[in-house]
Amino acid sequence: MPVEHYTSVAKARPRLRELWGTGRSIGSVHTLGALHVAHGEVIKRAAGENDHTIVTVYPNKIQLFPGSVYQYDLEEDVAFAEHCGADIVISSDDTEMYPPDYATYVDQGDRAHRLNSSVFDYASRGQVTGAIRWISLCRPTASYFGMKDIEQSLLVQRAVKDLLIDCDIRHVPCVRYRDTGVPVSSRLRFLPLERLTEVGAVYHALETGRRLICDGETNATVIVDAVREQLEAALTTFQILYVTVADAETFAPVDRAELPFILHVAITDGTITHFDGLCLRTEQELAESPEVIWIP
Amino acid sequence: MPVEHYTSVAKARPRLRELWGTGRSIGSVHTLGALHVAHGEVIKRAAGENDHTIVTVYPNKIQLFPGSVYQYDLEEDVAFAEHCGADIVISSDDTEMYPPDYATYVDQGDRAHRLNSSVFDYASRGQVTGAIRWISLCRPTASYFGMKDIEQSLLVQRAVKDLLIDCDIRHVPCVRYRDTGVPVSSRLRFLPLERLTEVGAVYHALETGRRLICDGETNATVIVDAVREQLEAALTTFQILYVTVADAETFAPVDRAELPFILHVAITDGTITHFDGLCLRTEQELAESPEVIWIP
Repeated sequence: MPVEHYTSVAKARPRLRELWGTGRSIGSVHTLGALHVAHGEVIKRAAGENDHTIVTVYPNKIQLFPGSVYQYDLEEDVAFAEHCGADIVISSDDTEMYPPDYATYVDQGDRAHRLNSSVFDYASRGQVTGAIRWISLCRPTASYFGMKDIEQSLLVQRAVKDLLIDCDIRHVPCVRYRDTGVPVSSRLRFLPLERLTEVGAVYHALETGRRLICDGETNATVIVDAVREQLEAALTTFQILYVTVADAETFAPVDRAELPFILHVAITDGTITHFDGLCLRTEQELAESPEVIWIP
Repeated sequence: MPVEHYTSVAKARPRLRELWGTGRSIGSVHTLGALHVAHGEVIKRAAGENDHTIVTVYPNKIQLFPGSVYQYDLEEDVAFAEHCGADIVISSDDTEMYPPDYATYVDQGDRAHRLNSSVFDYASRGQVTGAIRWISLCRPTASYFGMKDIEQSLLVQRAVKDLLIDCDIRHVPCVRYRDTGVPVSSRLRFLPLERLTEVGAVYHALETGRRLICDGETNATVIVDAVREQLEAALTTFQILYVTVADAETFAPVDRAELPFILHVAITDGTITHFDGLCLRTEQELAESPEVIWIP
């Protein structure tokens, strides 16, 4: 069966109602478009675990830098989603998604202004609102989020639970290049190889921090300083925005690294801002590092 | 079939999944408990238009005055809901609905701080969040809201549309006592008859305002003054909090009464605050007053 592509929410609704009636399981993956291998891993996981897999493609206006143009090729994205196992793609545009009288946002208080969102204040509320809208539309049995974006994955899980939505949020490991440790990210797609190596220093510094904690260090200041020192030595064109040890629920900085917690870093070259982090929830994740999908 | 009563969200979930699979229509009515004849009209309407009717009973902590105790008798409410045609009742409590890590709210910006919510600042966000949670849980085909609370009915409709939730929000006319014009309200249930007559003055003053507009007056200041003057003459134990002509979408005060708009009044005696209003969306509603369900 070729993939079904619905080019608006309105056109998708009748098909969704039909799907719900079948009682078959639905997996969903919600994207901004410009799909790459990391999206592919998320889509494959959804397709492997469900009868139907819906991929949504829409560069969500309220989570992107205001006025920026997000480059993507819808036809390529549809073909790629199909290749990874999706059977339904839904796309939309600003006109349908944000009519002039649009007014509703999913708010999660302070936690939505920390980590990534301490840099891009609008990002987190927009991401979570966007994800909840697609989940409300599609009513998936399970919805899949990559752990590249720890903040979004945890906040959406929180929102789905709080709003009593009957959907399992499943986290897919971060996809990283084996050579550099850099996570696959649309934001980095135009970066030349030598600068990717520099970005990879973030992951290695995070790993240094994790090993320090494994060895018994729990003082957040000591851990942050060690990560920061290694990172400062490695960065040439990027600068550190923050290094933090944060609570895994509220994202507030903590004094002591005690499970579960997040070790998180942001760097910027003034144009590109790169976030990376380790979400350490269990003894195993602390000992072995969170699971990674390595690619060449 | 006797009514099925699920005493928690967790207990209701398996039954809800079963219902969704049948493809039958579901109507829902979401209440704080202490059901009365006005809830009854809403439930009857839902039962008349759907295969299944779910009534939820939970005095939503985040929309009630902080620390206040909301008096209701769950067993009476279940029996009453059944009597009005409900086949499923779901109840819950603060422990299940607001665990310590609860963090998610449906935010609608400025409009959620106007009308009723200009008096009780927390009310509207809490009401809308509460309603969206129950709608997310139950996935009704249609959910029914009484026009006694214009603000909630319109904000929930806005939220459901914005969040792409596949649910029809249906507004049920306000239920009023024929003698006094007073809307049936849990908040007024302990008020003696002579004071109910005083409260009824609000409806009569609103009607004076509407007739003035029918006769060609569009200046909001003139309309507000006329309503206020009539009201001041009639009130003895209550005081006016506000009289406003507001936009029907944003609830912001307007200079000119042009369809659609809301004529809205709040009064208080220091203990009980009473809101009443006319939501005038069409020429017919302006000419004949919004539909009312009159009871003896």
